Amino acid sequence: MRTDQLLEALTPEARNEPDSGIIKAAMYGFTVPGVIRLWAGEGTQPTPDAFARPATEALLGGETFYTWQRGLPELREALARYHGRHFGRSFDPENFFVTSGGMQAIQTIVQAVAGAGDDIVMPTPAWPNYASTLRISGARPVEVPMDFRNGRWTLDLDRLFDAVTPRTRGISLNSPSNPVGWTASREELIAIRDFCRKRGLWILGDEVYTRFYYGAKGESRAPSFLDVCEDEEQLLLANTFSKNWAMTGWRIGWLQAPRALGAAIERIIQVNSSGTPAFLQRGCVAALDTGDEFVAEQVANARRCRDLTVDLLRDVPGVRFEVPEGAFYLFFRIEGMTDSALTVRRLIDEAKVGFAPGSTFGPGGEGHLRMCFLKDRATLTEALSRFAEWMKRARSA
Amino acid sequence: MRTDQLLEALTPEARNEPDSGIIKAAMYGFTVPGVIRLWAGEGTQPTPDAFARPATEALLGGETFYTWQRGLPELREALARYHGRHFGRSFDPENFFVTSGGMQAIQTIVQAVAGAGDDIVMPTPAWPNYASTLRISGARPVEVPMDFRNGRWTLDLDRLFDAVTPRTRGISLNSPSNPVGWTASREELIAIRDFCRKRGLWILGDEVYTRFYYGAKGESRAPSFLDVCEDEEQLLLANTFSKNWAMTGWRIGWLQAPRALGAAIERIIQVNSSGTPAFLQRGCVAALDTGDEFVAEQVANARRCRDLTVDLLRDVPGVRFEVPEGAFYLFFRIEGMTDSALTVRRLIDEAKVGFAPGSTFGPGGEGHLRMCFLKDRATLTEALSRFAEWMKRARSA
Repeated sequence: MRTDQLLEALTPEARNEPDSGIIKAAMYGFTVPGVIRLWAGEGTQPTPDAFARPATEALLGGETFYTWQRGLPELREALARYHGRHFGRSFDPENFFVTSGGMQAIQTIVQAVAGAGDDIVMPTPAWPNYASTLRISGARPVEVPMDFRNGRWTLDLDRLFDAVTPRTRGISLNSPSNPVGWTASREELIAIRDFCRKRGLWILGDEVYTRFYYGAKGESRAPSFLDVCEDEEQLLLANTFSKNWAMTGWRIGWLQAPRALGAAIERIIQVNSSGTPAFLQRGCVAALDTGDEFVAEQVANARRCRDLTVDLLRDVPGVRFEVPEGAFYLFFRIEGMTDSALTVRRLIDEAKVGFAPGSTFGPGGEGHLRMCFLKDRATLTEALSRFAEWMKRARSA
Repeated sequence: MRTDQLLEALTPEARNEPDSGIIKAAMYGFTVPGVIRLWAGEGTQPTPDAFARPATEALLGGETFYTWQRGLPELREALARYHGRHFGRSFDPENFFVTSGGMQAIQTIVQAVAGAGDDIVMPTPAWPNYASTLRISGARPVEVPMDFRNGRWTLDLDRLFDAVTPRTRGISLNSPSNPVGWTASREELIAIRDFCRKRGLWILGDEVYTRFYYGAKGESRAPSFLDVCEDEEQLLLANTFSKNWAMTGWRIGWLQAPRALGAAIERIIQVNSSGTPAFLQRGCVAALDTGDEFVAEQVANARRCRDLTVDLLRDVPGVRFEVPEGAFYLFFRIEGMTDSALTVRRLIDEAKVGFAPGSTFGPGGEGHLRMCFLKDRATLTEALSRFAEWMKRARSA
């Protein structure tokens, strides 16, 4: 059969979904030698041996069978302990569900609350996978662009709430935000909570970057819905081992949900992944129980990287950005750029430096590029020198 | 909030989906000490070291970053080689996509071709996850029961085809079948292919058990859609490393699809799992390239287990079954049993032996229990002796 006939036989959602600009950049960049890879959200440090060893021992020890669909009890208990330490109150293991990556936590959440005919309201620029997973599930993302004015990103809550209609099932919020680094204040979280409570809406929270927070008061994490919500209310939070513990390649995450949804979430996990490798979960237990110092170092390093990146880019003509308050991305505007996807390809080919295009992050994103700054000093310096040189050539051409 | 309010706020699909009877049995059975576990589709042999070592080496060697969304090129090439050896023709790595388990391969296939308002026609008894993943995706399984008459399972193809309506997007077929062991002949596959071609329908094939085939002529695998279809037609096949290579706990599978769908499938993989751990894929390459002898031994062992199981159950009063031609389950009828889920719980509690309830496999399944016979001789003997004793007591009570 011809390609067009085969594509025509897919669902419209599968056929028409745009490619992720991040993945497109990565898949293209993988084929070009010597490119410095700043497109994805990960550092350069492999997973520490201390987290990897328990996993390899369990694998070689034969823990290679089907396992608990909600995750190993030991891991759910470790998640409760970790949260107890960092959020200053007690947590119940029954509110935690292990997933095969933070992405799968988000997908599981979407499958639980939004199907055909349902809307989820969300601010943009945002990680494109939120909108994709909603559309592939038959639901509709309603995107409300944030403002970038006077060098600052702000979220207009009234505008966000005005986008809610009878079709709306929830509000999705990623704070600290990928890509812009904007971080909701406690007061903003309370306003969203109160609005959702009043309207019977779900809060779909992504707090993956909560530890990567560079608040002025030296806080060890960003404000969280966990500070202002009950465990048994319409709150669903996605999280991952990827960022804090340098485990992007493990594809393990978790979600927090009311205990009341346990059986429903277990059913969705069953058809998404049928559980997460038990032997890998042993490494996650070690990460949670012994990794606090590692995470603190990672965050301190990320802050230094952010400051270095800001120094290196501040004086590049034609570039503007807000210094991010959280996460580990710089989302920078390039004066006059109208096709960020094309620019990304040109930068890979001509400057051997790889960013993600702003257009992939939804309304308000075009005109920007995203870079992950969780890299070592030499890599950042080289990458941004390549970029600055390219900019100079491009602007004089 | 109260539990009923929280459940009411889920989508109807998430709220109303029945629990998998297999998972329910397993999750209950895990809490009862001393139960022999025959509910799940896995053997007792852990993954061989030869497949595990390359994975642990890659993990400790730092291959812990994001990876190719379609799978490592090396693994896709190994899949093409493996199929070339076992299916007697050449395969293109571009037709293979690595997924986080066979279940996720099925989910990805469903998300590509069926959404709200779409039907997929399938014979039952069938693994309950097909129907679940369809319903959770907003689509509808149309279940056509097979006949169990005169001790044999047969699929009436006319009845299957008669269930197709304008809403139908495809026919789903699992051969060899979990749970009944029925295996489609080459002629049946051709009839389904021709019908689907004429009507523009997708074939959704699950050939996970194709190597576990006990044909009379000593064939090394069951007849396959790969024998009778083109690579670039409406055929989507799900498969897994779980069964052949004793890797259930790894959660890695693959799907075969037209190359034309590559970008669409990559987008779905991105929101399902964002790729499968690269370090684990190294173990899968070893399994494919060096595991032929292991698989042959597994299948020979499965055949011996099947024969033993048949011997042990043949004379138990009140039990009837067809000797399965493929897969590694015995699906046996118990005279007079009308609630297989209750019977499963009673058998766990009273006989310390764990089966899966026939009712969970859809229309035609109630009245049966499913057992996995890929166990060692002593385990099978003990389990079936416990069962026979329990049957004797139950029938005399």
